[in-house]
Amino acid sequence: MDIFQESLQFHEEKRGKIEVAPLVPVSNEKELSLAYTPGVSEPCMVISKDVKAVNKYTRRWNLVAIVSDGSAVLGLGDIGPEAGLPVMEGKALLFKAFGGVDAFPLCINTKDVNEIVEFIKRLEPTFAGINLEDISAPRCFEIEERLKKETKMAIFHDDQHGTAIVTMAGLINALKIVNKKIEAIKVITCGAGAAGIAVIKLLMNMGVKNVIMCDRRGAIYEGRQDDMNPIKEEIARITNRDMIKGSLADAFVGADVFIGVSGPGLVTKEMIASMNPGAIVMAMANPTPEIMPDEAKEAGAAIVCTGRSDYPNQVNNVLAFPGLFRGAFDVEASEINEAMKIAAAYAIASQISPEELSPEYVIPKVFNPQVGPAVAKAVAKAAMTSGVAGKQVDPEWVVKHCQEMCTIVK
Amino acid sequence: MDIFQESLQFHEEKRGKIEVAPLVPVSNEKELSLAYTPGVSEPCMVISKDVKAVNKYTRRWNLVAIVSDGSAVLGLGDIGPEAGLPVMEGKALLFKAFGGVDAFPLCINTKDVNEIVEFIKRLEPTFAGINLEDISAPRCFEIEERLKKETKMAIFHDDQHGTAIVTMAGLINALKIVNKKIEAIKVITCGAGAAGIAVIKLLMNMGVKNVIMCDRRGAIYEGRQDDMNPIKEEIARITNRDMIKGSLADAFVGADVFIGVSGPGLVTKEMIASMNPGAIVMAMANPTPEIMPDEAKEAGAAIVCTGRSDYPNQVNNVLAFPGLFRGAFDVEASEINEAMKIAAAYAIASQISPEELSPEYVIPKVFNPQVGPAVAKAVAKAAMTSGVAGKQVDPEWVVKHCQEMCTIVK
Repeated sequence: MDIFQESLQFHEEKRGKIEVAPLVPVSNEKELSLAYTPGVSEPCMVISKDVKAVNKYTRRWNLVAIVSDGSAVLGLGDIGPEAGLPVMEGKALLFKAFGGVDAFPLCINTKDVNEIVEFIKRLEPTFAGINLEDISAPRCFEIEERLKKETKMAIFHDDQHGTAIVTMAGLINALKIVNKKIEAIKVITCGAGAAGIAVIKLLMNMGVKNVIMCDRRGAIYEGRQDDMNPIKEEIARITNRDMIKGSLADAFVGADVFIGVSGPGLVTKEMIASMNPGAIVMAMANPTPEIMPDEAKEAGAAIVCTGRSDYPNQVNNVLAFPGLFRGAFDVEASEINEAMKIAAAYAIASQISPEELSPEYVIPKVFNPQVGPAVAKAVAKAAMTSGVAGKQVDPEWVVKHCQEMCTIVK
Repeated sequence: MDIFQESLQFHEEKRGKIEVAPLVPVSNEKELSLAYTPGVSEPCMVISKDVKAVNKYTRRWNLVAIVSDGSAVLGLGDIGPEAGLPVMEGKALLFKAFGGVDAFPLCINTKDVNEIVEFIKRLEPTFAGINLEDISAPRCFEIEERLKKETKMAIFHDDQHGTAIVTMAGLINALKIVNKKIEAIKVITCGAGAAGIAVIKLLMNMGVKNVIMCDRRGAIYEGRQDDMNPIKEEIARITNRDMIKGSLADAFVGADVFIGVSGPGLVTKEMIASMNPGAIVMAMANPTPEIMPDEAKEAGAAIVCTGRSDYPNQVNNVLAFPGLFRGAFDVEASEINEAMKIAAAYAIASQISPEELSPEYVIPKVFNPQVGPAVAKAVAKAAMTSGVAGKQVDPEWVVKHCQEMCTIVK
């Protein structure tokens, strides 16, 4: 029985991977009167006079809704909200295990941008954060942007930013090995989906000057006529300022880094061979990368990362989102900004010491128990420094708090 | 320190009474690949081909959303969605403790009927049931009615039907003591809120012929001009067919049962004294009843029920809703109908044996561990018989399942 059949059977046996569990007992009259009537009317009255106190007396401070319309689930595409639920329950498990965050899946039966935004805005009294998940591009961009403007919740689209953060973490460490500066590298990317755009934006915010986005037709540049769309046009305006034209193979020549979040087999050994010495190849199409790691190595790549757990250097979002929300929640952050994402990337990268660092080990392992607390601490600090924290805390307390609340440490 | 201050402190210490907890481990690569990627894509694909399979592979089958706009919270009124959250978390605790149901609170920031209905309809891929809570009348009626028509979830407004069911349970037992038949009694009620209307409807569905609803001005009858509203007019059309007019005191004369879900101190000893011998007084205004139990007794009441835990015969909804949803979910009921509510009322009543029955004990105690399983079994049977069950199960299995899943039995 392969892992797929085994997982199906596992899901049928369990009939759900999460539950809503009590944190307090109600086994006698006294406990009932404390947790429910009549005592509960007192916290209600206090919150009614000061709405912010909801984070003091309820679980809201630690609650994130995982919202999906099931339109872009894993590599499966638009399979619908019910079919997305097993993934969202799995995600909730990871939030709790790696960050101690209470995450509740809400798969909803609309794909309309306005309706999704309205739905999520209704949740603000109950949730401190929203994790958008598996919502197809370009709707996911507008939804995220509007929610950031129109709410005070911590809004995060993991398919975009989770991937971008872990990619950056790998890149930071890979650049140490090949001894190149982030300001000096030439990066080419492939893939104009949610992750592709977010990777480019984070690359540029972290100091990369020379980025060229490609598709099957080659380099995307401002003014290109063929096969464009509003997202490619936006990217064309901010990248490739030298207006390089030509095929995908042309674009590879002299590149230092390739980042692929596109499709299987797009990249050839010849393309890799045309890159600069010390080439970094992040081929993250799932389950089949743009080029297989052994081929990339044979063609001269110095370091290869993929999205797969059966190769070294797996770019796995679980390194980012649990600790990121832990840190954001611990300081009651009203948003998740660029500074917090960059802090998360450096925190992940720093979990590999200079002695440990090697071409086969630029990204920490998923079950490394140091990563979540380190990300939480860095994100909390960045939130406080950048002025989006609702309260100030000791960053060392965030580390301890993450260790206490997550379950993988124990 | 009184219970209110103690509860405030308790809520501040706990910062939440529920969590989203894992039902499966994710502590190594194998477990991760079963519960999440890549294995999870298999149940996703199966559900995408057969949407109903979502209840087979996810927790949806056991999930109820407790939805509130915070407009009618306890006796506190319109305190807003954030301020309602401590109550909804408490309710979630009770669902789990007494029925093993996973209940998640969703307090939302709109009071618009259409927006609330739309919001809840979006949840259908995720939840098998909806418990409407603390939504003010008359909006709660329209919301419930529309959701029953427009969704296949089990919809229940506990303020209405939970109260009505437990009231009926008490009445069934009280009538045994005073040896009167339900078809022959004259009932007067007070209170045109959510509970008041539901009590009247359930009374009539259970065979009561003679019901007169009253307000401060007296009996409500078809064609009354003063102080009417659409709800009172609807009730006037189906009750008081003899068109009895007169003051509240007039209406009490010769009544067998008084049911109050109105306000404190509305009923005098003289009114009680004018009732028929063997008078049953259910004075459920909270926290101060329409008449205090000792006064009612002094005035000749045979049996008194209230909403308070410090007097005998407490009408407490927790006797109904956890077992009711347990039974509904165990047969995948597509609605909660009158037959299921009546079955719940009789099941609650039957938990007091003829030998135990006394004027001070017509309603079971809240912590009686037999009640939830008995309600679940009766409700499951009624759902199967009335054709709203999605599957057939052995009613004895429902009893065992409820005992396994709830936490107070252990």
